[in-house]
Amino acid sequence: MDAAQKTENRSKAGGTGYLFTDGIVVTSAPDGPVWAPGDVAVRNGRIIYAGAALTPARREKYFREGLQHWPLGGRVIMPGLINTHTHAAMSLLRGYAEDRPLLEWLERLVFPFESRLSGEAVYWGTLVSCMEMIRGGITTLNDMYFFMEDAAKAVADSGMRAVLGWGLSGIDAQSAERALAQAEEFYQKWNGAAGGRIRVCMAPHATYTCPPAFLAQVVERAAALGAGLHIHVAESPEECRRHQEQFGETEVATLERLGAWELPAVAAHCVQVTSGDIRILARHGVAVSHNPTSNLKLGNGIAPVQEMLDAGITVALGTDGPASNNNQDLFQEMRLAAIAQKGRTHDPTVLPAPQVVAMATQWGAKALRWPEIGALKVGNWADLVILRKPMSHRWPAWDVWSDLVYACHGGDVQDVLVAGQVILKNGQFTALDEGWVLAAAQMVLEAVKPPQRNVAWPLPKRE
Amino acid sequence: MDAAQKTENRSKAGGTGYLFTDGIVVTSAPDGPVWAPGDVAVRNGRIIYAGAALTPARREKYFREGLQHWPLGGRVIMPGLINTHTHAAMSLLRGYAEDRPLLEWLERLVFPFESRLSGEAVYWGTLVSCMEMIRGGITTLNDMYFFMEDAAKAVADSGMRAVLGWGLSGIDAQSAERALAQAEEFYQKWNGAAGGRIRVCMAPHATYTCPPAFLAQVVERAAALGAGLHIHVAESPEECRRHQEQFGETEVATLERLGAWELPAVAAHCVQVTSGDIRILARHGVAVSHNPTSNLKLGNGIAPVQEMLDAGITVALGTDGPASNNNQDLFQEMRLAAIAQKGRTHDPTVLPAPQVVAMATQWGAKALRWPEIGALKVGNWADLVILRKPMSHRWPAWDVWSDLVYACHGGDVQDVLVAGQVILKNGQFTALDEGWVLAAAQMVLEAVKPPQRNVAWPLPKRE
Repeated sequence: MDAAQKTENRSKAGGTGYLFTDGIVVTSAPDGPVWAPGDVAVRNGRIIYAGAALTPARREKYFREGLQHWPLGGRVIMPGLINTHTHAAMSLLRGYAEDRPLLEWLERLVFPFESRLSGEAVYWGTLVSCMEMIRGGITTLNDMYFFMEDAAKAVADSGMRAVLGWGLSGIDAQSAERALAQAEEFYQKWNGAAGGRIRVCMAPHATYTCPPAFLAQVVERAAALGAGLHIHVAESPEECRRHQEQFGETEVATLERLGAWELPAVAAHCVQVTSGDIRILARHGVAVSHNPTSNLKLGNGIAPVQEMLDAGITVALGTDGPASNNNQDLFQEMRLAAIAQKGRTHDPTVLPAPQVVAMATQWGAKALRWPEIGALKVGNWADLVILRKPMSHRWPAWDVWSDLVYACHGGDVQDVLVAGQVILKNGQFTALDEGWVLAAAQMVLEAVKPPQRNVAWPLPKRE
Repeated sequence: MDAAQKTENRSKAGGTGYLFTDGIVVTSAPDGPVWAPGDVAVRNGRIIYAGAALTPARREKYFREGLQHWPLGGRVIMPGLINTHTHAAMSLLRGYAEDRPLLEWLERLVFPFESRLSGEAVYWGTLVSCMEMIRGGITTLNDMYFFMEDAAKAVADSGMRAVLGWGLSGIDAQSAERALAQAEEFYQKWNGAAGGRIRVCMAPHATYTCPPAFLAQVVERAAALGAGLHIHVAESPEECRRHQEQFGETEVATLERLGAWELPAVAAHCVQVTSGDIRILARHGVAVSHNPTSNLKLGNGIAPVQEMLDAGITVALGTDGPASNNNQDLFQEMRLAAIAQKGRTHDPTVLPAPQVVAMATQWGAKALRWPEIGALKVGNWADLVILRKPMSHRWPAWDVWSDLVYACHGGDVQDVLVAGQVILKNGQFTALDEGWVLAAAQMVLEAVKPPQRNVAWPLPKRE
């Protein structure tokens, strides 16, 4: 029985929960309202109140009904952040190879390393990333990798919420068919698992790794299953140039032709999209996952987020995997999304802070088609983040939106709840031992790592 | 008697210090060496050893001579970071006004607020920023503001090292003359103060606030005093367009003509420099302070750092003031400098991690003409930073340079020493009470803030 199931059972029995009092309640972005001071009440894993501070009499009523008192003392309470694109297990490769040309990085360093990975390595690598994300206030991730059953176990053990997709490549036709069957089996087994915290989608990697015939097959299976789609789109200039040469159209156009955009889809990156592409994405309600750090770090540039928003596209935020970021910290991505867009357009008024918070919360929920998360609304899952009091790097917190986007970092997260279950309490994991997980992950890494490279971490000197 | 003088006296008497053992010793960037495991010995505020882990016999010798043992257990020890451009007291305005057009931001919000500031407000605002910077591993700042005697007192009390310049504007001729006299008096009184931790420079604000005749006067006084120069240069496209129209040449060319570049100078920003400007800056050995967050946030773009480095210019890093960043965290600036340059040039190999660490350490020292800081070399001041062990967001730390630039944030700093004096120990200030300083600063802020705007921080509900 996992943590979420325990919550479900306890909830049905006792109706337990919390009454958070006297916080700055950021109910939803971009429009709020923000209640300061405000209260939030949670029962059976769901939000039953989020608004202005209650009268003592109404608070007493909740306490009599069994809710525990959790005084916030002016701290910010907000929806858990939603990471709409990552490859969590790649924590194993964080910092393994830096500052290289893209193809050398992928083909000479990343792919050979990945070919050595095991399900066990993916479990521990994913669990390390879940710890990083929880520490930074992320409660939901959209993950694409392989050995996804192991990734799913790690997510279930971490207490997080996730959409998981088995990354599919169709370059070798025989293994492609096997992978698709595996992805379908993964869907049947894990969609809705962990008390509903885990959902499964189909994740063809990209147009340059999945030929059109295979993509059409994936789209057909996804439609039959009722699954969504998660795919890399128009990430690098070189990849787009080659696609245009080979097919005489853009990646977005090819995917439209193959029916991919009929599915509920998350298109990751979209750095090199044309204005025609933007019209196509908008027409089909495709959501875009913007990954500003990864896009700059790999030399791909800055996505036209403002143009996509203007066209009515839902743009959410992603960290990408830890090998190309190297963090999974959505506070960092919020800040960079805001300032990169201002720098690109030479206009400091674009992407104001409340919109950027929406990208990391409510618009993320919309991108993943998961309407019960991303905002503190009655009936929603209680996926909550409580921040620390502002210390010197955030003082004097003139404005809560500015504080969240421009001053905070992941280290400012104090407490995290998913479906009303406390998974981080005062900066400590309630069910995981971080040091032990890192030690276990290190042992597994030592077993799978390429022989020619050692971790920099030194052993003490022995004479 | 301030903290640094106490150190000096104690050092002369007892020859105290520390022997740090079994760390990852990042001696200097970009070329290292990095010793893992390595030791660092500090006596009388200066580094007397930095290299491979010593034999037990040599360690014993240091202990007998009175050095205290400080085991690092594999933690990174590195030179203190150098922030080459900020306006520390502007912590008072952090988050006060966001996402506005530049002129509205400056003229309708920032300037009216600044006109209400007092020396007391600048003292507390600067002290808050010093705390933020120390927490993030910054040991030296290059500050430009007003009420600089108060800023100097805050820096002295914080234990940090600084170059301070009284920001000069020459728009009103009469007040300009007075300000220049004041800056000169500040130089006489504070240059070399706080046990040598404080140096003073001349800081004409910018060409658009200082007409040529006034600039020439400032340059002449600076030369007579032997002081360096700190000035904003080519920050926004609009400012450069206007300058070109008015003077028929670029800002850099005007400053060359006025003799400014004959002085040891730090030119902040340089986002809009032309290739001719780059040749001028290189010819005169002008150092550039690159402020990537501020440049993007205010909509100014990304400076041509790679072209300036190629021309042989010393490019260092700055945070700019907390009203336009909104942090003073050089780990964040290192990451952004690296990835922004890769994104701008579409080349992931530019600005590799060791060069970016150099921008924040040794090249910062070079920019400030302070050769005894910025690297762990025998004879240098012991301005040191010790990082925490890598937890989930940094694991597995394959490479120390990548760890520093792409994975760390300011919250990873555990201990900070300036001139051998411990000012942050295990994340706690040794001589400052952070909560008390923030409370005092808040009281002063309440007294000077514009009446129409309240801090978002809520008071608890009272019935």
